[in-house]
Amino acid sequence: MLACSACGSDKVLYARKHEGRALCAGCFAEDLEEKVRRTIVRYHMLEPFDHVAVGVSGGKDSLTLLTVLSKLEKRFPNAKLMAVTVDEGIDGYRDEALEIARKHCERLGIRQVTVSFRELFGTTTDEIARTKRELTPCSYCGVLRRKAINRAATMVGVSKIATAHNLDDEAQTILLNLLHGDISRLVRNSPVLRDPRGKFITRIKPLAGIPEKEIVLYAYSQGFEFQSTPCPHGADALRSDIRVILNRLDEKHPGMKFTAYRTGEKLRELLDGVLPVAELNACERCGDPTPHTLCEGCRLLQVTVPFAFSA
Amino acid sequence: MLACSACGSDKVLYARKHEGRALCAGCFAEDLEEKVRRTIVRYHMLEPFDHVAVGVSGGKDSLTLLTVLSKLEKRFPNAKLMAVTVDEGIDGYRDEALEIARKHCERLGIRQVTVSFRELFGTTTDEIARTKRELTPCSYCGVLRRKAINRAATMVGVSKIATAHNLDDEAQTILLNLLHGDISRLVRNSPVLRDPRGKFITRIKPLAGIPEKEIVLYAYSQGFEFQSTPCPHGADALRSDIRVILNRLDEKHPGMKFTAYRTGEKLRELLDGVLPVAELNACERCGDPTPHTLCEGCRLLQVTVPFAFSA
Repeated sequence: MLACSACGSDKVLYARKHEGRALCAGCFAEDLEEKVRRTIVRYHMLEPFDHVAVGVSGGKDSLTLLTVLSKLEKRFPNAKLMAVTVDEGIDGYRDEALEIARKHCERLGIRQVTVSFRELFGTTTDEIARTKRELTPCSYCGVLRRKAINRAATMVGVSKIATAHNLDDEAQTILLNLLHGDISRLVRNSPVLRDPRGKFITRIKPLAGIPEKEIVLYAYSQGFEFQSTPCPHGADALRSDIRVILNRLDEKHPGMKFTAYRTGEKLRELLDGVLPVAELNACERCGDPTPHTLCEGCRLLQVTVPFAFSA
Repeated sequence: MLACSACGSDKVLYARKHEGRALCAGCFAEDLEEKVRRTIVRYHMLEPFDHVAVGVSGGKDSLTLLTVLSKLEKRFPNAKLMAVTVDEGIDGYRDEALEIARKHCERLGIRQVTVSFRELFGTTTDEIARTKRELTPCSYCGVLRRKAINRAATMVGVSKIATAHNLDDEAQTILLNLLHGDISRLVRNSPVLRDPRGKFITRIKPLAGIPEKEIVLYAYSQGFEFQSTPCPHGADALRSDIRVILNRLDEKHPGMKFTAYRTGEKLRELLDGVLPVAELNACERCGDPTPHTLCEGCRLLQVTVPFAFSA
């Protein structure tokens, strides 16, 4: 009979194929938390005095991240953790998640700040989906969410921003950038993004080494309530294709997501210092740092949404 | 009605989606040949005094390459072209292709040299498939075929080896190396492979910019007889998966194969000189240049096939 490779219990929750190990719920949770800790150490993501803003949407990934970080925080009395939640304005979808996020933060005793697209940019993802057809709603939403988290983090005053990107996200992004031909993004997209010019708050991705399915398992086995309905605006088409592809490949050739991830890592190391770092200006419209005259968010918004006047 | 974008003829053979152009058979052939010429110029593949060995298997790609190069050769009276055909020893499959290759060379008036796995290595792909299970037959066959072409080319004395890898092959190889985590191969795999140590004959891939479907179309429209039955030993599993994936992605997002190809190109340029170049030794067994003590072919063969005694 299958037994937990760590404690011998016969209540096995999960068999990790590429490692040939089986784990019970308790040992699986410890193992995952230890993996996150090792990722943090490996990439020098955190220091004892860090004040960290965690992007918390109410999905399984961000609830897992916040939970694991709050456990680790207990060992560092001088570190501080808070949650930033963004309301993108997606009717009948975001409200449920916001409530879940609020309750989860309350349970963990973590301060939460909520900001909305409406108050920051004078529009919502629903409005954008109705009025802007140049790109998918996802493209706008992704750029603006990053901008919103940055704004909230700057407002509150933190030293790091933590986001819940997992191994699947990272492997997909590597493939996506390769298929888009975007080398500078391929190289830039690291588990820890430090701005050499010191204008952006350092962003860390402590879950970058954890496969999505293990996060789902963690969230379920910890009894989290989390949002599992998909966004009504759908997902980015090419990323969805790549997600399906990578899942199939990883099923047939276990460990393939890890390999893609490590390849991205090796490329980054090799190309460190080879690609030029652009100078940053203040965005003409919102003041955020940007290598252009307008930041990406303002460029996306300026065409049809008169957000400067609508707030 | 659809008309040829080049000559206006109403007999359109092909509509090239990513360029928004339609072409009749004659203009399509000229266009493809011109594209090959431009690839050759762009990568400085050939010089007026080159003596080129073309790997000719009897498939659509190699017959197209030989035909296009023989047309181009007419402009360079000091250049010389010959064909190298490898008999891998695949019963009921290779014989047909060998005959096709022979006739095609005869028609073009090009000298052909045929070498066999049996005479070079004392074994055949059929035998390997029966006796060796460590890897797929494809893995052995690919390494040994490259080795065989090299040997024949060295024997005859040429300055360049041309192989018929097309855009699909190249894009697949980029993805494959990424998913295998093999950065040095990712970087090494260029449309022109010059050995900085001068020990290997320079290999060129003049069809690297031509999509497979355009080569099929060229071969059909030129009336080539070519082998179209698949190899009885099947294909490499991961490469087959990637072929299907890239075809689907390129269908939905036209131009994706080109982008993957160009990304590989950009990575090569950026990493030029960053990766160390290994020293080469003479293989202990066959004398071929290798960074190890045994070359890849001899490493693959040594375990179960006693080829040193069986020739």
